[in-house]
Amino acid sequence: MRARYGDAAPELTEAALLDSPVLAQLLQHRSVRRFTTEPVTPETVTALVAAAQSAATSSNNQVWSVVEIRDETARTRLVHEAGGSSFVADAPVILLFVADWARAAAIADQHGEPAEAADYLESTLVGFVDAALAAQNAVVAAEALGLGTCYLGSLRNHPEVTAEIAGLPPRAVVAFGVAVGHPDPTDRAGIKPRLAPHVVHGVETYRPVEPTDVEAYERELAAYNATQGRASGWVRAVVGRVSRVAGLHGREPMRAWLEARGLPSR
Amino acid sequence: MRARYGDAAPELTEAALLDSPVLAQLLQHRSVRRFTTEPVTPETVTALVAAAQSAATSSNNQVWSVVEIRDETARTRLVHEAGGSSFVADAPVILLFVADWARAAAIADQHGEPAEAADYLESTLVGFVDAALAAQNAVVAAEALGLGTCYLGSLRNHPEVTAEIAGLPPRAVVAFGVAVGHPDPTDRAGIKPRLAPHVVHGVETYRPVEPTDVEAYERELAAYNATQGRASGWVRAVVGRVSRVAGLHGREPMRAWLEARGLPSR
Repeated sequence: MRARYGDAAPELTEAALLDSPVLAQLLQHRSVRRFTTEPVTPETVTALVAAAQSAATSSNNQVWSVVEIRDETARTRLVHEAGGSSFVADAPVILLFVADWARAAAIADQHGEPAEAADYLESTLVGFVDAALAAQNAVVAAEALGLGTCYLGSLRNHPEVTAEIAGLPPRAVVAFGVAVGHPDPTDRAGIKPRLAPHVVHGVETYRPVEPTDVEAYERELAAYNATQGRASGWVRAVVGRVSRVAGLHGREPMRAWLEARGLPSR
Repeated sequence: MRARYGDAAPELTEAALLDSPVLAQLLQHRSVRRFTTEPVTPETVTALVAAAQSAATSSNNQVWSVVEIRDETARTRLVHEAGGSSFVADAPVILLFVADWARAAAIADQHGEPAEAADYLESTLVGFVDAALAAQNAVVAAEALGLGTCYLGSLRNHPEVTAEIAGLPPRAVVAFGVAVGHPDPTDRAGIKPRLAPHVVHGVETYRPVEPTDVEAYERELAAYNATQGRASGWVRAVVGRVSRVAGLHGREPMRAWLEARGLPSR
C-alpha cells in the first residue's frame, strides 16, 4: 500500500485483508520489460489461457481470442512493423489478445445468418472488454507463477500489420499484446505509485479531480521516478495525451482502421 | 480444469502449475447473483479499489474511475431505470466502473489546454480497457476474500441514466457495473464451461472455428446447464446476438449515446 500510494496509502486493519496473499500479490504488480532467456513452457501458456478463459465474458459469448507468438521473425516484425517496443523481440512469448467477432460471425454463417450486429460500436466495445478481462486474468496467473508481464497497447499503431502477423480473419483485431517471460533480475522497475484512492473512487457519487490531488501525485511519482533514474512529469504527460490530436501517437484513424478490419463500430 | 472444459480439459503436469493457489482460484471463478445480507465493509472496498488501481493502465494515464453505490434508492434506480438485473437491488455494493476522460480533460483545462484527443475512438477504447483491467483485479481480490461478484454489462442500456445516478461529468461514462457481496449459499451457480482451449488459443496464428468445436461445446454446456435446471442453446444465443441488430438489445445507438456523454468516438 505504501509503495502504491506513498503518503496517501490507506491503512488496512481487517485481518482478512492483511492475511490475503492474493491481495498482496495484486498490490505488488509491476510491469516487466526485461526477461531472461529461460523459456516459458507451452503448458504454462495453456494454464494462462485457462485462467483467461475463466474470466467473465459478456453473456458467455466469448468474443475474444488469443494468439501466442514465439517465432523470432514474427516478434521482430511486431517491433519493426507493428509498433511494439524493442523488448518485444526479446520476450519469449507475446500473447496477442484479439477482440474477435469473427468466430460468432462464422457460427452465424454456418447457420445461414448474417452478422449485422457485429458492425456496431457496442459490439466493438464488448470485444475489447472481453479481451481485457481475459488478459488481466492471464497476467494475474503469470505473476502468481513468478513470471513478469507487460501490456503492449502500442500494437494498436498498425492493426492491419498485427492482423496479418496473427493471421486474423475479418471482424477480428488485436486489442493489445502482453509480453510474458521470466523477469531479468537487472530490471529495476518497481511498484509504480498511482493516484490517491479518493481521486479515482467516489462513494455514491463521482468525485471531480482537485488541483491539490494532482500536485500530491506529481510529488509521489517524482520520488518514485527518481529511484528509477527517470525524470517525472505526470501532468505534462496527461496533458500531452489528451489536449491535441498529436497525443494519440498516430492512432486518430482507429475508427477507419477498425472498419477496414470489418468492425465499422457504427 | 475439468469443470471449466469438460472432456476438452488439458492435463497440467508441472508442479508449479498444480501448486498455485492463485491459478486454482482463477479457474474456479463463477458469477454470483444472490447475496446474503452480510455487509461488505468500507475497508474491504478500499482494498478492492487498491487492487484495481494496481492493474496496468495505458501509459499510466489512469483514465478510469469507480463509483461505489450502496444507497438503496440508487440501487433500485439502477434496476428500474438503468437496465440492471433485479438482483442489483439486493447486492450490498455495486461498483460502477467508469471510462473516464473527464479527469484528464479537467487537468488539461487547469493548464489552459483543450481535450481534443478525448474525442477519438482510440481514447474511448483506452478508457474501456483501463476500466476492464481495473475491474478484473477488483473481482479477483473480491473472490480471494470470499466475496462473490457479477459483471453488469446491462448498465450500458441507458448511459445517460447511469451517468446521472453516478454524478458523472461530460467525457465520463459507466462502462459496466460489478455487483459485490457475500454469496448466498442457495446460489447454485457453478463453474461454467467455456469453449475448448484450442478454439480460442492459436499458436503462432489464429485458428478459425470448426463446426465440430461448436458441437462439442454445445454438449458440454448442455450438461452443465442441466445441473442448473436450465435449457441450453449456445449457438442459438450467439447467432441471436450477432446476426441481427435486435441482438444488441437496444444498444445500437451506443455511438450517439457516447457522443452525448462527450465521447464522440470518432
